[in-house]
Amino acid sequence: MYGKDKGVYKLVLPTLESPRELERLSLAELKNLASEIREELCRLYDHRSVHFASNLGVVELCIALHTTFDFSWDRLIWDTGHQIYPHKLLTGRFNQFATIRTKGGLMGFPNPEESEYDLMMTGHAGCSVGTALGLCCGDDLVAGVNKRHSVAVIGDGALSSGVVYEAMNHAGGLKKNLTVVLNDNKMSICPRVGGLSNHLDRLRLHPIYSRTKQKLHHLVDRTPIIGSSVDSFFGRFKNAVKAGLLGGMLFEELGFRYIGPIDGHNIARLQRFLRMARSLEEPVLLHIFTEKGRGFRPAEENPTAYHAPKPRQIFSTSSSVSVSSSAPTISSVANSSTSPLQSSLSASPSQPQFSQVATFTEHVRNAIELLMRSNDRVCVITAAMCQGNMLEPIRDQFPDRFFDVGICESHAVIFAAGLAKSGMLPIVDIYSTFLQRAYDQLFQEISLQNLPIILAIDRAGLSGPDGPTHHGVFDLGYLRPFPNFVVMVPADALDVEPMFRFAEHLECPVAIRYPKADATIIERNPEPIQRGKAEIVRNGVDGMIVACGSLLATAMEAAKTLGKNLDGLGRVDVGVINARFVKPLDADLILQPLRDGKFLVTFEEGMLAGGFGSAVLEEANNAQLDTRRLRRIGIPDHYVEHGERSELLEDLGLSEKSLVKICRDIMFK
Amino acid sequence: MYGKDKGVYKLVLPTLESPRELERLSLAELKNLASEIREELCRLYDHRSVHFASNLGVVELCIALHTTFDFSWDRLIWDTGHQIYPHKLLTGRFNQFATIRTKGGLMGFPNPEESEYDLMMTGHAGCSVGTALGLCCGDDLVAGVNKRHSVAVIGDGALSSGVVYEAMNHAGGLKKNLTVVLNDNKMSICPRVGGLSNHLDRLRLHPIYSRTKQKLHHLVDRTPIIGSSVDSFFGRFKNAVKAGLLGGMLFEELGFRYIGPIDGHNIARLQRFLRMARSLEEPVLLHIFTEKGRGFRPAEENPTAYHAPKPRQIFSTSSSVSVSSSAPTISSVANSSTSPLQSSLSASPSQPQFSQVATFTEHVRNAIELLMRSNDRVCVITAAMCQGNMLEPIRDQFPDRFFDVGICESHAVIFAAGLAKSGMLPIVDIYSTFLQRAYDQLFQEISLQNLPIILAIDRAGLSGPDGPTHHGVFDLGYLRPFPNFVVMVPADALDVEPMFRFAEHLECPVAIRYPKADATIIERNPEPIQRGKAEIVRNGVDGMIVACGSLLATAMEAAKTLGKNLDGLGRVDVGVINARFVKPLDADLILQPLRDGKFLVTFEEGMLAGGFGSAVLEEANNAQLDTRRLRRIGIPDHYVEHGERSELLEDLGLSEKSLVKICRDIMFK
Repeated sequence: MYGKDKGVYKLVLPTLESPRELERLSLAELKNLASEIREELCRLYDHRSVHFASNLGVVELCIALHTTFDFSWDRLIWDTGHQIYPHKLLTGRFNQFATIRTKGGLMGFPNPEESEYDLMMTGHAGCSVGTALGLCCGDDLVAGVNKRHSVAVIGDGALSSGVVYEAMNHAGGLKKNLTVVLNDNKMSICPRVGGLSNHLDRLRLHPIYSRTKQKLHHLVDRTPIIGSSVDSFFGRFKNAVKAGLLGGMLFEELGFRYIGPIDGHNIARLQRFLRMARSLEEPVLLHIFTEKGRGFRPAEENPTAYHAPKPRQIFSTSSSVSVSSSAPTISSVANSSTSPLQSSLSASPSQPQFSQVATFTEHVRNAIELLMRSNDRVCVITAAMCQGNMLEPIRDQFPDRFFDVGICESHAVIFAAGLAKSGMLPIVDIYSTFLQRAYDQLFQEISLQNLPIILAIDRAGLSGPDGPTHHGVFDLGYLRPFPNFVVMVPADALDVEPMFRFAEHLECPVAIRYPKADATIIERNPEPIQRGKAEIVRNGVDGMIVACGSLLATAMEAAKTLGKNLDGLGRVDVGVINARFVKPLDADLILQPLRDGKFLVTFEEGMLAGGFGSAVLEEANNAQLDTRRLRRIGIPDHYVEHGERSELLEDLGLSEKSLVKICRDIMFK
Repeated sequence: MYGKDKGVYKLVLPTLESPRELERLSLAELKNLASEIREELCRLYDHRSVHFASNLGVVELCIALHTTFDFSWDRLIWDTGHQIYPHKLLTGRFNQFATIRTKGGLMGFPNPEESEYDLMMTGHAGCSVGTALGLCCGDDLVAGVNKRHSVAVIGDGALSSGVVYEAMNHAGGLKKNLTVVLNDNKMSICPRVGGLSNHLDRLRLHPIYSRTKQKLHHLVDRTPIIGSSVDSFFGRFKNAVKAGLLGGMLFEELGFRYIGPIDGHNIARLQRFLRMARSLEEPVLLHIFTEKGRGFRPAEENPTAYHAPKPRQIFSTSSSVSVSSSAPTISSVANSSTSPLQSSLSASPSQPQFSQVATFTEHVRNAIELLMRSNDRVCVITAAMCQGNMLEPIRDQFPDRFFDVGICESHAVIFAAGLAKSGMLPIVDIYSTFLQRAYDQLFQEISLQNLPIILAIDRAGLSGPDGPTHHGVFDLGYLRPFPNFVVMVPADALDVEPMFRFAEHLECPVAIRYPKADATIIERNPEPIQRGKAEIVRNGVDGMIVACGSLLATAMEAAKTLGKNLDGLGRVDVGVINARFVKPLDADLILQPLRDGKFLVTFEEGMLAGGFGSAVLEEANNAQLDTRRLRRIGIPDHYVEHGERSELLEDLGLSEKSLVKICRDIMFK
């Protein structure tokens, strides 16, 4: 089954209980194991939208790590965590692997509850080096003599994140034996940006550097990277020059020993250099080159589209499914007539076909595009979310006014502040959960300066299968206390463009927050957007549901159901309000039911503590209204697991059924 | 009056209306101007606690900047902003200068409302490069042909902040003509830390590098930093080697042209290199060396103590006031018998004398010290706030368990998570406002993992004369929504140590939040700390005030006053609760007045939106209690200016008088 060795080897993966068992395998067997892992990955990707190309890229690295270290004692942190799949396969989770990213199944990110080999639940980029350093220092203090080793694996995309630099600078000062593996695939989720990547690319590609290398040989002889001459003056000098020319001086300046670059798909070489890194009594950066999508040609050729493709996209490129020569072991899989990989679908990843109802993300992109056409002061900033936010057409049409800063949300917001100060109108388009990285910048650079910028907050609410690290459930709570901010929540497609048009003329910071969901249109004659004005979508004599954003659709369904006499107790005639503004809140309209002695239910996809319902409650308290007939529905004080958004909403009581029950309880109990 | 030129020159500073007028001055006159500025700074420091040493260090730089650029058109951002004083003196604010840091007077940080030369109100470190880059890009888009230049001035201490790296990486990729002046005084507020600083120090001090320099001369000839040979292979190579050996390769790798290091006290040289930086069509890092405290010897010798000394500390070192030879112009000031600088006080900055009532900061330090003595798993992390948090004795006693990570709060929290995961109990001691930098890390690294760490949140509430960038008024609002967190607020000295002892045994994240204030003891027989339990400090039949933290003292005074029949309307018998826990809240105890039909007033030093009062309101709503007799007192939806904390509390109605009025209004209206 494995290329030319088909049928010769017994499958290793299905019976592997612990990575300790890998010690028994020969190098040839480990190579076959790599093929087994790739086949499992492809099998999975045929069925489900999962992180794809990045996992194909780290197969050999994962094997080399687990055969060089014992991570039941040593420490391994995968940065961000979406490249954790081979690690999960090697650490006793083969049998559950098909459940990944489904509710109740394995997480698509590290999860300490699944395995002792997953130390931290992560999903935000750049934290691995700091965590590994903390483990390193803590282990030295706690464990004493029996040294544990700490290893962080970080992609070059995450390198643009400032916390990596903060941690490396600290590690360089502490001189701990920490190993950072830089997994350089020349990509972030989108192609990476910034001076460092330019520099690395130049070093690799520019002809002058080939000549430089040749000329250098006349100035300095080759020396081993590690050797007895290291401590002598010339050893240092030669290494400095070499490292400088190979891009490692940045790390050397931070106090790391730079080793590399080496081929990240060569298990034996990886093992050798990992052992070397382990043996050094100082922080080491091991620079490896890998190919994102390694072993599956469509993914190799278009790694951005295959970062986390929908399953139907995988085998539907215009070129027929072809397998790259660099990983022949997959050919048997991809070409086998019985392989699930053969199932073919029509959509191409470069020409995605959307379902009938477009998503909020698409509507927002279109609204931004219209603003940019009519107003040349509008510019867009994103943080490596160009694809996720569907901004490619904007990037291509307005290259001068489009800025992808890479994975550094803090800087994205500071940079936007500078743009705004110069007279531009920046739209910062970032996922809710990642915008948390810019909390302090939203405070100082935006809110305190009262600068006109627009935050387009995508993936607000429950993000679905990515789970707790990706749910955007804190944003309303953290934006509300900031003075000067206007916070809007579009209920459907009809609200989106008018809100952006309205925001264009506000001379203050604006946040527009919307979920990863279809922007199903609520049939109505929408009122124009006015500052701090909510919209009555349906009247009712018994009470009101005030929906925060896209849950309006659910509220409307519930109101319809409540209008029926379900069980003989009677009908509930409930109205529905589209809140539109979380700040300033339309207290006049929203609180009227309480003034009239009717009930009021707030309905939001966010944390209850400090959220939209609390805003309503605060206003009611300011107005000294009786709040006994006010109920707040939202996310309670715990983290929400992964699963389909609809499943999670159902679980949390953010569903029609639950809303109907609550309203009937208020009326009839 | 100015050294050897005494009496010859007319004072320039008092009549200077605009920095444009500096163009008329000769180099000698500019040097005298530097002396005038230093004298003004010293005059000010004699009267008031202000940022001191950093301002003395940038006098010549400030003059050189304003004589090279026209910042009514060009853009200047001072990083952090505490070194803004010379800039304020040169930009038309001489006459108001004595009001600095007083309520209604000049801010101690940049303030756009004061001057068009202050672009952004700042106070948090590391944002200058990103802001300047945003201005640069925006100006190119908006202004078109007439090029504006952007300059950021950043200290080497702020260099450890990740956003600087994020911004430099982005700038390096964009290749804009941005000038970053690295003001290297070898200090942050405390001595800086990390690999980079070690590297820079080594480069400066290690004898091998002197030899290296000599030997280099045999390998590569001297070339001008900028010249026709730059683009040739050897020009590039030589520059790379030079920069590498001088510590600039880090910046070169990020895409900057590195120039320096040069003497930051030589106006003519600064002007020359600034002009050079301006002329280059690429991002430039100009590395200058300055002395913190330049021109005032006690500050030069002990810059940490003189970062922002209390006025009584300035002229009270055991050595008599002596003036450094490097700045002879000050001698006339310091030695003049009529100078205000002569006023002498007894306390030494190295042996600070505390007032009778110790501050929360001291009590917390003592509590931490006791924990560390009894539990060797306890360790402390701070982010360049060793002095501000009075942690020096802990650093000196427990060097292995004390980590000052420099100005990088995000990393501090990630690092602490790693330590906690290894089995240590980290105490992260950071100011409230700066902890905002770690919002996302508090979410992912701490709350989501449910790791036992203790946040000691200093300067929570109103920080006083530092103003809006330093007030810590958002913390309760942003911590409450995080699952797993326990949030405590000590009311006085009696609460502090028991709370830390209690936190020691909680297996979850804990935040203990306290203001920059005396920890005045509230006379009582304190109850032991129990999870989620508040404490009744005074009973009352009419209503209750529930105080969040140190405002308990004010609440007690108000209750006493309310017990008097002030104006014939009658007495109000009001009780007082010490909340102790913001999360979990003691709903049983705190809500009892509402159940009994009494009034309830919540009283907090934080934003009302989502704050402590909202937590009480949410619990009341959950319990379906009538909240019409609940009043929330806290900080409304605007930024609070600078001034003494007591003045600001009074203004905000967080005073005895206001509290008395509110309670009487509830009773009698």
